[in-house]
Amino acid sequence: MEFHPLKFGFLCTILLVMVSVLGVDGHGGMRSTLGNNRLLGIFSEKIRSSRIAHSHASTTSMPLYEGYNYTQILDHFAYTPESYQTFPQRYFIDKSHWGGSQNNSPIFVWLGAEIDITYNLDVGIFIDQAPRFKALVVYIEHRYYGTSMPFGGKDEAYSNASTKGYFTSTQALADYATVIVDLKKTLKAENCPVVVFGGSYGGMLAAWFRLKYPHLTIGALASSAPILYFDNITPTYGYYSVVTKDFRDVSEICYRRVNESWDMMDKIASSPQGLLNLSMLFNTCENITDKDAFYYELEYMYMSAAQYNFEKICNAMNSLPGDVDTVSRIAAAANYAHKGQCLDLSPPNFTYSGWIWQICTDLVIRVSNPPGTTMFPPSSFDFNSYARNCYLKLGVYPRQHWATTEFGGHDIKRVLKDFGSNIIFSNGLRDPWSSGGVLANISESIVAITTEEGTHGQDIAYPSASDDPVWLKEQRQKEIIIIQKWINDYK
Amino acid sequence: MEFHPLKFGFLCTILLVMVSVLGVDGHGGMRSTLGNNRLLGIFSEKIRSSRIAHSHASTTSMPLYEGYNYTQILDHFAYTPESYQTFPQRYFIDKSHWGGSQNNSPIFVWLGAEIDITYNLDVGIFIDQAPRFKALVVYIEHRYYGTSMPFGGKDEAYSNASTKGYFTSTQALADYATVIVDLKKTLKAENCPVVVFGGSYGGMLAAWFRLKYPHLTIGALASSAPILYFDNITPTYGYYSVVTKDFRDVSEICYRRVNESWDMMDKIASSPQGLLNLSMLFNTCENITDKDAFYYELEYMYMSAAQYNFEKICNAMNSLPGDVDTVSRIAAAANYAHKGQCLDLSPPNFTYSGWIWQICTDLVIRVSNPPGTTMFPPSSFDFNSYARNCYLKLGVYPRQHWATTEFGGHDIKRVLKDFGSNIIFSNGLRDPWSSGGVLANISESIVAITTEEGTHGQDIAYPSASDDPVWLKEQRQKEIIIIQKWINDYK
Repeated sequence: MEFHPLKFGFLCTILLVMVSVLGVDGHGGMRSTLGNNRLLGIFSEKIRSSRIAHSHASTTSMPLYEGYNYTQILDHFAYTPESYQTFPQRYFIDKSHWGGSQNNSPIFVWLGAEIDITYNLDVGIFIDQAPRFKALVVYIEHRYYGTSMPFGGKDEAYSNASTKGYFTSTQALADYATVIVDLKKTLKAENCPVVVFGGSYGGMLAAWFRLKYPHLTIGALASSAPILYFDNITPTYGYYSVVTKDFRDVSEICYRRVNESWDMMDKIASSPQGLLNLSMLFNTCENITDKDAFYYELEYMYMSAAQYNFEKICNAMNSLPGDVDTVSRIAAAANYAHKGQCLDLSPPNFTYSGWIWQICTDLVIRVSNPPGTTMFPPSSFDFNSYARNCYLKLGVYPRQHWATTEFGGHDIKRVLKDFGSNIIFSNGLRDPWSSGGVLANISESIVAITTEEGTHGQDIAYPSASDDPVWLKEQRQKEIIIIQKWINDYK
Repeated sequence: MEFHPLKFGFLCTILLVMVSVLGVDGHGGMRSTLGNNRLLGIFSEKIRSSRIAHSHASTTSMPLYEGYNYTQILDHFAYTPESYQTFPQRYFIDKSHWGGSQNNSPIFVWLGAEIDITYNLDVGIFIDQAPRFKALVVYIEHRYYGTSMPFGGKDEAYSNASTKGYFTSTQALADYATVIVDLKKTLKAENCPVVVFGGSYGGMLAAWFRLKYPHLTIGALASSAPILYFDNITPTYGYYSVVTKDFRDVSEICYRRVNESWDMMDKIASSPQGLLNLSMLFNTCENITDKDAFYYELEYMYMSAAQYNFEKICNAMNSLPGDVDTVSRIAAAANYAHKGQCLDLSPPNFTYSGWIWQICTDLVIRVSNPPGTTMFPPSSFDFNSYARNCYLKLGVYPRQHWATTEFGGHDIKRVLKDFGSNIIFSNGLRDPWSSGGVLANISESIVAITTEEGTHGQDIAYPSASDDPVWLKEQRQKEIIIIQKWINDYK
């Protein structure tokens, strides 16, 4: 199975677009709150058997995952009768490379994030490095994703705020703690060092897990983890500005065309038959009735493109004859991106999205685009309207400062320079989420590894012997050397 | 107001006796589960006005506390509709010495524990050192104690497991985090360094707070904090063995008399009229029907004595004529300790005890006395019977490994030697709880300060200029120098 870069791209973009959907300000002519349901595809459940054999293009080893369910407690932080309910938390382990507890061989744990864990079973660094480290490989699914559903199933778990209320990042971290404690006990591996890994939201969890549970892990690789995208630590337009920079780096003219297109489309939209004309030009599945829903779709296209295929999108835009107008060029790019299929503008299913729940509760990521800052149409972040939307759609009110209260982030260099150790924050600077990442070393052992060319989660993707650029190989090598040092120091 | 050493002694003993009450094994002739309600006196609410003026024997300053209620959220870790309920969390601040936010003057925060916070407003190190450090002094009450009651009041909050279910140490830590964030914001003191302090259970909270919330505090003084009295980290008889050693150090003959008395009393108890005779001899308020309830009362006397007044108890025992039998000597000591009042053997009010709830939920402290280890009557710790009692009395089932899963403790030196910083673990080795404390330095800045002669929480008690021994003054000086260094390093 070859690595699908879009898997990470999707996640990355979803993180943002869902924020946009909720967070934009309805006042003052700025965009209102709508959404895009195609983004939710990634959340659909993929049922696999509990024993999965993966094959890889350049494989020398065939990972053999054993699937288990841990009987997990619903609420680690309360002792009400309800809190004692349990659910099956799924995890997979691959023992085939493990040196065993008698050798204190390491345990590599992938902390699942906002996706069915079976989508993550090809984490490259594990497949590539487990044999070398003689590591036990463990993948733990995040509660309320995949099959790790309280209350009997997704329909029940997602039915209302009472059942969804235990769906939080703190509970997820405590889940990982209890599974790791149990697993080490079962395997008599109490003395084996555990290293945790995660990407994107999972990278945030990995960093937080090392900070909150240092007794259960000796170190964390947090790939593309925007742990600073809370409160006002990162400018709200950080994400958009990296996308904009990515486009300019590839094609200044492409950037300028996107930048100027919004005003032009505004003009068309406000003319008689304008929305109908745009609908035909952009091949929307239904006629455009809300301009913002349509703009979101275009934004999503640019954001996806910012991950992997700038050139092709820009080519589709730029290769038309010189007299073609800008809006038609944008339409050509959109049609290219959608491979001729119609553009779906229907709103997302808020109720069934795990990620929307998370950003409506403890992960309030503030994203907006003040006028003139980037190539995107202007938007502002207004917490009150964001919160109102969460309440209307999901019956829940976000706690906007909880993430920084619980996990910190402000002034991180001062706080962690003499506190904590053994975290790698890896970021590719082409990844828009890198704007909220840790990009400079904090201390000798809390380090940042950045690459100019890197994209979202690229370092932990499955390595390709022939195609990977030198800088990517070097980055991975750096990470492996550091992890090896953690293990040596532990022993 | 002079310092009342028994205030801490009481707490300390309560911590243990409540464990004994629940934890002993009903099998095999060992003691069954009963209790002693007088211990709960300390939990009774003491209502004071929100503005309290303290006077001190040797005062140069008169602390002026302003009382506030923070509107605290019921459940930080869930997003159910219930979790959004609020309660008034009480805190007191004394601004009179504060150098102000413009000078980044420090904030000293006392983390309330299992007691009405107004009992703690004379924490010595604050009163003594706040002027020197120009510190803002803050005392925050622990949820479910004092007036910081969810659901409208203690009757409601304590009525059943559903309302009590949010009464956990993790929620309490998150409470402190939110109050500190709010207070710093209100006072525009975001850049002022916060140092947290606590004693006994509060000392555990202080250490854990520094470990879990390093972004909100630069360091913690954890006085007499038995953070290692979980799972099997500390031997279950650690507490009893320190009490035993304390007695032997004072009087070997006193120790021997206590040690031999249990068998003698067993013999009396098993004879006809034996319990009646013991009742008369020991002046019990009601006739003894359960020998164990009576033994608990005596144990409690020894444990209290182990804090502060070994000599007097032993004197009462030893000063009788040579031909007086051992059991009568024990009775004389008991009558001395109770100042002629009758010995109350009625069982504790489990429902109204905050501390019993805590040890029946997340703080499972394992205490017992294997035969032959100490001067106390033998008992064993059996988790199943402990849990059964919690369930019968309170409708809740303890999570026995939660404390170490969430807070660690196993192999603490390895875990924290390169992780974390700025914690003082202070312990007096005459304090029975020191058996579960951190007694050796972990790293350069996670340090243990122990004193041979010290008792429970003595370092943070109000200093007496004339009476304090040199070693105690030196201990306090060491702590103050370290705290000053934290603040200097921060600045």
